[in-house]
Amino acid sequence: MSQSTRFTPNWIEQAPPSGSYRSLFKWGDPSKFKHPNHGMYELLKETFGMHDSDFSQPQSLGMEQFDVTAPAGLDAQHLHALEQIVGVENVFTGAYERTRFSYGAGMFDALRLRLHIVENLPGAVLAPRSTQDVIAVMGYCDAQRIPLYVHGGGSSVTRGKEAVQGGVCLDMSRHMKEVIAFNETDQTITVQAGIMGPNLENILNHAPETLNARRHYTCGHFPQSFMHSSVGGWVVTRGAGQNSTYYGKIEDIVLSQEYVTPRGVLQTPAYPRSATGPDFDQVMMGSEGCFGVLTAVTLRVFRYMPQNTRRYSYLFHTWEDALNAVREVLQGEFGAPSVFRLSDPEETDVAMRMYHIHGTPADKALKMLGYQPMQRCLLLGSADGDSAYTALVKRKIAAIARRYRAFPLTPFQVTQRWEKSRFDDPYLREDLMDFGILIDTLECAVTWEQAPKIHARVREFIKSHPRTICMTHLSHVYPQGTNLYFIFIAHIHDIDEYLHLQYGVLEAVEQSGAAMSHHHGIGKQTGPWLEEQISPPCMDVLRLLKAHFDPHNILNPGGTLGLDMSAEQREKRWGFRNLE
Amino acid sequence: MSQSTRFTPNWIEQAPPSGSYRSLFKWGDPSKFKHPNHGMYELLKETFGMHDSDFSQPQSLGMEQFDVTAPAGLDAQHLHALEQIVGVENVFTGAYERTRFSYGAGMFDALRLRLHIVENLPGAVLAPRSTQDVIAVMGYCDAQRIPLYVHGGGSSVTRGKEAVQGGVCLDMSRHMKEVIAFNETDQTITVQAGIMGPNLENILNHAPETLNARRHYTCGHFPQSFMHSSVGGWVVTRGAGQNSTYYGKIEDIVLSQEYVTPRGVLQTPAYPRSATGPDFDQVMMGSEGCFGVLTAVTLRVFRYMPQNTRRYSYLFHTWEDALNAVREVLQGEFGAPSVFRLSDPEETDVAMRMYHIHGTPADKALKMLGYQPMQRCLLLGSADGDSAYTALVKRKIAAIARRYRAFPLTPFQVTQRWEKSRFDDPYLREDLMDFGILIDTLECAVTWEQAPKIHARVREFIKSHPRTICMTHLSHVYPQGTNLYFIFIAHIHDIDEYLHLQYGVLEAVEQSGAAMSHHHGIGKQTGPWLEEQISPPCMDVLRLLKAHFDPHNILNPGGTLGLDMSAEQREKRWGFRNLE
Repeated sequence: MSQSTRFTPNWIEQAPPSGSYRSLFKWGDPSKFKHPNHGMYELLKETFGMHDSDFSQPQSLGMEQFDVTAPAGLDAQHLHALEQIVGVENVFTGAYERTRFSYGAGMFDALRLRLHIVENLPGAVLAPRSTQDVIAVMGYCDAQRIPLYVHGGGSSVTRGKEAVQGGVCLDMSRHMKEVIAFNETDQTITVQAGIMGPNLENILNHAPETLNARRHYTCGHFPQSFMHSSVGGWVVTRGAGQNSTYYGKIEDIVLSQEYVTPRGVLQTPAYPRSATGPDFDQVMMGSEGCFGVLTAVTLRVFRYMPQNTRRYSYLFHTWEDALNAVREVLQGEFGAPSVFRLSDPEETDVAMRMYHIHGTPADKALKMLGYQPMQRCLLLGSADGDSAYTALVKRKIAAIARRYRAFPLTPFQVTQRWEKSRFDDPYLREDLMDFGILIDTLECAVTWEQAPKIHARVREFIKSHPRTICMTHLSHVYPQGTNLYFIFIAHIHDIDEYLHLQYGVLEAVEQSGAAMSHHHGIGKQTGPWLEEQISPPCMDVLRLLKAHFDPHNILNPGGTLGLDMSAEQREKRWGFRNLE
Repeated sequence: MSQSTRFTPNWIEQAPPSGSYRSLFKWGDPSKFKHPNHGMYELLKETFGMHDSDFSQPQSLGMEQFDVTAPAGLDAQHLHALEQIVGVENVFTGAYERTRFSYGAGMFDALRLRLHIVENLPGAVLAPRSTQDVIAVMGYCDAQRIPLYVHGGGSSVTRGKEAVQGGVCLDMSRHMKEVIAFNETDQTITVQAGIMGPNLENILNHAPETLNARRHYTCGHFPQSFMHSSVGGWVVTRGAGQNSTYYGKIEDIVLSQEYVTPRGVLQTPAYPRSATGPDFDQVMMGSEGCFGVLTAVTLRVFRYMPQNTRRYSYLFHTWEDALNAVREVLQGEFGAPSVFRLSDPEETDVAMRMYHIHGTPADKALKMLGYQPMQRCLLLGSADGDSAYTALVKRKIAAIARRYRAFPLTPFQVTQRWEKSRFDDPYLREDLMDFGILIDTLECAVTWEQAPKIHARVREFIKSHPRTICMTHLSHVYPQGTNLYFIFIAHIHDIDEYLHLQYGVLEAVEQSGAAMSHHHGIGKQTGPWLEEQISPPCMDVLRLLKAHFDPHNILNPGGTLGLDMSAEQREKRWGFRNLE
């Protein structure tokens, strides 16, 4: 079929009307889109037995105005007191705003909004102007037993900030987004927790102008949510950037934190390493808003040297070869790559379609060379740092790839193509959902030894759902193990069917022995599984810290991190909405 | 004076008699010695206004038999019960053994033993055979409120295991020293906590024979106490090896730990990274025996490739130049050196004497080239890892050194000379003490910005004590900061004079804003300063965890980590012995 006569689905190209449901659930910039390309579209039709005609009439678009009239969620006296603290102009009580700050960017959130299910709203959204404001709000809420939720960038996919017990939500992103200090000698920057990723990165990249620095810097932390996430969110969830194999996860980048808790302000010491008892940074990171409100963070920064970045990509014959090769890279002691993504066979084949290689002469050639569909695996990535260092890392990876007879794709600029859209894939979701197709992701952390068996186990479960695409990749790797990132696509309309699938994946992850999250965090979604995974003695420590910092359980209450859940809630995997 | 007519002090060359006081306080192997060389001897005489005649009659040698008859420290019924648990052959109640397992390797310990001050003994030393034994002993001690101390390698310099409240001491090194598991895919080894450094390293270096592995490995952790310290001791104190700039501190090397606590067994999850709440490994490391008894540890291991090690050394014109240069190395993003030691001007001059350069034509030439005494600074070190990687690191360090006009000493094999005696310097202590000269060390962690001012402040205090040598080096460096390691030598006989000096240094460290320890830990020595340094809210978390794991305060009680101290004890810096 020639390009000109191809059917093109009726992908929405219209920014959601202001105040519409769609404006609440659409990912990212209102006027930005990334549609499935033709290869992907063909795959969807094949997989789900759908036809062009099924893609002519998008549904449940949410273009209609948000029309919920939620009852007032806070007594007038509380509202008045809080207005006194942060200023009346920083208090928002409209149902639209309250929904926007409670819902995250997960599939469950989007699905509910398409279905006009609006639940679990805070009574008011407050935008504190300073740490002092946060302290005052905290004091008031603690005294009055008002639940307190925190919004950073809003990109949680774990129901991390959902105000399941009402109360108030702090919007940290409105005012608390300033640079507090920059120390070029130590290569550190201290920022308010509400600063957004691109803002921070822009300041650092232009440090000579913005910070009066001698050099340019980077924060080195680029999660897929980068454009729409805050530093505070990265830290409290233990996030990871796509370049974490070189720069580290956020817990490797944080040097010090300031939390406002019901028990007072806790400022962690700011040394690269010490031997003065437990590491308090590592106690507080991962607390997901349950121990306190993160107000300020000191981060390590790195030299910004994009001119030194070197890219590479390879196609391996098999998943086993590929896993062995990437492990060898990480254990090779020649430095670490920066982006380092290995796709499993199914994701590789989808990539072949998305990059229009599927079915081409190049594809035929690859097959003739023994790189077969549903066996071959794509590795792509880059190296950052000093120029000679990146050259060394690239050379060493090439040598290992050669040993495994991987096909060098580097000349085809696969990494560059990936980089162009590295933050854009979430835009695909709305297009798919417009035609009843769900796409969701879940991820976990494993050791190398565990990796193949956990990959197989989770895939087996996902594939037990008929007609389901299941793509997996490794994107954060270590000498001792890796993350596993699962993307599944299914033709599902019903919210309970979706949740059963999602919960089954979580169940499979937990039972297979993986860590329940590598970087998304736990939130309220994964909370019911946490105790079984980390063990009751560890969970007891978590509860202990919670009771210490937040004796009246006002901080992110309602099952976050599996805290404050009844046995029945845990049993019934409380994330199911009807139990709330 | 020609070599032949030189006076040689009457350094002791005799192994301490078995059962003598000296056998308790002498560092290391009984029959091993490292005497001050002539250069150092001359410096001592100059500094302290001493003469050859002062070095003819060594004193307080402790060659006499240990003759303390300590009263029984445990009721017969307890002793009997504990014998039932671990076996009568694993219970030791002699005063000699009880002293040996209570005293550490600090100067204060050695000084007390020279003066026949024997205090703070456990009632019995038990050698558990298994984790089950530890669980049973823990249960008994908790029920009976019997204090429980833990001995690993015995090299604590912070009174870390001193049994100030009697009770029992567990000797982990006798039986609990086995390899539990080795995973070559993950490059991890799981060992019982009592295994000694050289034993572990030997097993890993010969992994093909000892572990049926394909490759040879190293643990990468070589503290100065390496020959006489245990893995468990490394972990609970947050120790660092001399190669930590490449391999990381122990907290970077540990993957998982098993603790027996009064509240049960806690096993931390074993993933390289995760986002499942606080990092429990980082909660437990640094607990110094106060939360539980560490019974097993999973460590990352590294490829053993000594053939790739490359060495370098440089002489910088000034401390400022040297600090700037080493910071640039760490921030250069071309990989990290392994050993990386920068001496300040005074330590550099002492090294010049010890290496017999002082006063030679080479020394004159260096001076003519502008490398002046009390200004010039020595950097030495090595790079480990892949061969091309170590070549790169060495080349990059050379380039930075050149930029700072440092004199290349690499051809003179300074690092090799340092390596030869890297674990032997502690042997000097006994020779010095035999003639009334004290040598002690204290260390802290700082950011780069803080480094010069804290170095100056602590030196100023030490130098306020007349005729005192104060040498400082950096030996564990990071992009954001470094440790500072102070060695001071003074002519002191009196124990209180010594403690006043030591405490003054700790006071200066705390007040200057450094972390109170980078890798020695806190113990009972530094405990009184901890709360002021880490802040009361962090100290509250420490107390919280303590009360959780050890509700009856049986674990390492008596001020370890500043826990269970009265305000008066803290005020009076309780480490002073008379207050106990």
